[in-house]
Amino acid sequence: MAGYEGTIAALSTPEGIGGIAVVRVSGPDAMNIIKPCVSRIPPEPLRATFTSFIHPKDKHFIDDVVVTYFKSPRSYTGEDLVEISCHGGRIISGLILEVLYACGARPALPGEFSRRAFINGKMDLTQAEAVADMIHAETEKSLKAARVLLQGRLSQELEEIRHLLLDAASLLEIGLDFSDQDIETIEPEDIRDRVERGLIHINDLMTSYQTGRILHNGARIPIVGKPNAGKSSLLNAILKEERVITSDIPGTTRDYIEERINHSGYLLRLYDTAGLRDTRDFIELAGLEKTKKLMKDADLMLMITEFPDEVPYIAGFLETQEIPAIIVLNKIDRLPEEDIRRARSYTKTDLPVMAVSAQKDIHITALMDRILDLLKDHYILNTETVMISHLRHQNHLKVAQKALLSARHALDEGMSPEFVAMDIREAMSALDDITGKTTSPDVLNHIFNRFCIGK
Amino acid sequence: MAGYEGTIAALSTPEGIGGIAVVRVSGPDAMNIIKPCVSRIPPEPLRATFTSFIHPKDKHFIDDVVVTYFKSPRSYTGEDLVEISCHGGRIISGLILEVLYACGARPALPGEFSRRAFINGKMDLTQAEAVADMIHAETEKSLKAARVLLQGRLSQELEEIRHLLLDAASLLEIGLDFSDQDIETIEPEDIRDRVERGLIHINDLMTSYQTGRILHNGARIPIVGKPNAGKSSLLNAILKEERVITSDIPGTTRDYIEERINHSGYLLRLYDTAGLRDTRDFIELAGLEKTKKLMKDADLMLMITEFPDEVPYIAGFLETQEIPAIIVLNKIDRLPEEDIRRARSYTKTDLPVMAVSAQKDIHITALMDRILDLLKDHYILNTETVMISHLRHQNHLKVAQKALLSARHALDEGMSPEFVAMDIREAMSALDDITGKTTSPDVLNHIFNRFCIGK
Repeated sequence: MAGYEGTIAALSTPEGIGGIAVVRVSGPDAMNIIKPCVSRIPPEPLRATFTSFIHPKDKHFIDDVVVTYFKSPRSYTGEDLVEISCHGGRIISGLILEVLYACGARPALPGEFSRRAFINGKMDLTQAEAVADMIHAETEKSLKAARVLLQGRLSQELEEIRHLLLDAASLLEIGLDFSDQDIETIEPEDIRDRVERGLIHINDLMTSYQTGRILHNGARIPIVGKPNAGKSSLLNAILKEERVITSDIPGTTRDYIEERINHSGYLLRLYDTAGLRDTRDFIELAGLEKTKKLMKDADLMLMITEFPDEVPYIAGFLETQEIPAIIVLNKIDRLPEEDIRRARSYTKTDLPVMAVSAQKDIHITALMDRILDLLKDHYILNTETVMISHLRHQNHLKVAQKALLSARHALDEGMSPEFVAMDIREAMSALDDITGKTTSPDVLNHIFNRFCIGK
Repeated sequence: MAGYEGTIAALSTPEGIGGIAVVRVSGPDAMNIIKPCVSRIPPEPLRATFTSFIHPKDKHFIDDVVVTYFKSPRSYTGEDLVEISCHGGRIISGLILEVLYACGARPALPGEFSRRAFINGKMDLTQAEAVADMIHAETEKSLKAARVLLQGRLSQELEEIRHLLLDAASLLEIGLDFSDQDIETIEPEDIRDRVERGLIHINDLMTSYQTGRILHNGARIPIVGKPNAGKSSLLNAILKEERVITSDIPGTTRDYIEERINHSGYLLRLYDTAGLRDTRDFIELAGLEKTKKLMKDADLMLMITEFPDEVPYIAGFLETQEIPAIIVLNKIDRLPEEDIRRARSYTKTDLPVMAVSAQKDIHITALMDRILDLLKDHYILNTETVMISHLRHQNHLKVAQKALLSARHALDEGMSPEFVAMDIREAMSALDDITGKTTSPDVLNHIFNRFCIGK
């Protein structure tokens, strides 16, 4: 792959002030580049070696470092790799990198270490994606979801489906090759069974995407209500009680406020739809473009009101929606006990009505627990099973599904085996795209560019 | 030292998104704490060992890590120390630390690893300070100055002075002990000579403080001039051409703007005294409280004007100052050649007049080079020699100097040897304070608290 050869070097720890920093060098010349820069050469692989790092030309001392040599293939990249652990801070690692670049290494591109690990067969594409997911994980649960991926369990499952389909395609193709000879014909039922089982497998994985996405990207929870119902107060009350995640996502212009919290390890993304003005009722609210979009993409909705009499109307509206929701009756510190009881009794369905006071911080914890329970019930947020969490995976699965449906149709219609085989091969190719068995450089660029430099 | 025992653990790399993170554990129980958390125990010290990090209770997998064991005393702290290199990001290192804390380690205080290195004699106090200086260095030159300190060269020099004084004190004290016996008396000239040499040494070090401070903290360069003379334009023109340092220093309320740049490895701190209003001339400007303070603390002054006829007045003012300065004649794109020549000829002294246009970016580079030349000439910015860069050192040296002056006075006045010996001992004790031979816990707290956690 042109442009990706050579020996690369980069800072692998975050930039900034810290006790230590680690610079990594990977490639065929890693050791040759390092040797003239250290006063003591690591005597053997995996031996942490105290040494001075010096400029090979003027012999100027740069830092006291610990150098460890990971010999190919026993390294992260699968290549010869050297780790230089130096003092932290802004300057030292920069000076070390300058020397390495002068000595023949080149700056690593984002994700290039992991890209090499992939190219050298140390991990497949889903595992490489899992590495990036783990590093960017904002909560314990999203970390766990990434870990399942890192362990290669999705790849195993895909391999099983692939095996099933390979057998089917082979059977068909043998039939084709020998069609003019007098050998036993293949049972169409056997092929059909394999295609059917492949479809079920793929469908299960596609269904898991919702769970995977929520664990990975967080559950989207808009707070919807009329002006002055207390949307912002509710959000603030929640933020006061929860572990808020300060995120690095560059500011985008939006008409709503998003806050990310870590609730029992789950990432929840709360949206205050503030800015909406003068709307007569909830159904109309939902007609507003921004809110409509937020509600459409929601994983759970919080519908907030201060008027007990509005509860039945909101409930009526929610019953037409498919998304789990909670009706939040706010400002209960100002409501008679009787009214609250009445509001609760309005909903005949199991739609929960939670009575809170955002201002007075009443029942906020109970509300949060209820949110999590609903999410868990509805989406089976199990981090131990294999699931899809990347849209890329989902898209490839869709292609595979479509091809298998077409294969099944061809079988049902008694079409020529070569058409069936082509469909099955197309499905297999889509699965291979997920693990990276066949993937174009463009796709690789897209995937590895979201990595940080140094990984 | 109470409160500083036990086995400590902390993240030693900066927080944030990065390829890898390193967690350090140091103390007598480091290996005992690690053992149940890893699937493979490092077979020997210094051997980088691939292993899984697991929760010792529920055996849950946390991350694939590389563990290296540095056995006491061959470690940074001098204690048993284990480094755990894990995937980067916000969550993983936090989970690993949680496990370590649950297993008996406690969170390290800021600088506690270095504090232990100091306590265990791996480095003296000036070297520990150098570690923090290196990490916080903003330019190559400040790094170099810190490195001289790290190499222990200041400590060596102090040790020489100490030795000189110890001999003097011992001679005096022997004289005291045997004063009722009939042994040879000590030559007062010999004692006086040692005190004198100590004073010269100490004086040299104290003189180096200005150089050390500039290399370490940067040269302070206020830009002073009337409103509309182009102070802000000049600062902006400089920032466009130079490597600007974005600094983490929390915003303080100030009446001026400070910008830090890295010019050929030197840290320059430029101050725009903007905000000053309606002043008639430079002398009056200097009378303003804020500007006065900036000018008093300046290492070099930039006096800016757009009027050639003002040059002689500014020159006259500057001749009464002791600080190197440059007169900047701005807006030369609008001035006739003749006027510029005239302005240059006004100064009879070697006070430089630099003709520039901040707006049109004319001669800004030449101005910057001139600034650096002046600084180098005036402060001998040599990074290879031993110098003082900490106010703490300077203060202790002042105490030592005062004590030795008192000793010399006592000798000259023929006072009792015990007074002279007391003074010399006081000077020695002040020197010991610098290296940390004798230092109170309060001083240690003060020094190590400015370290980051994890170092």
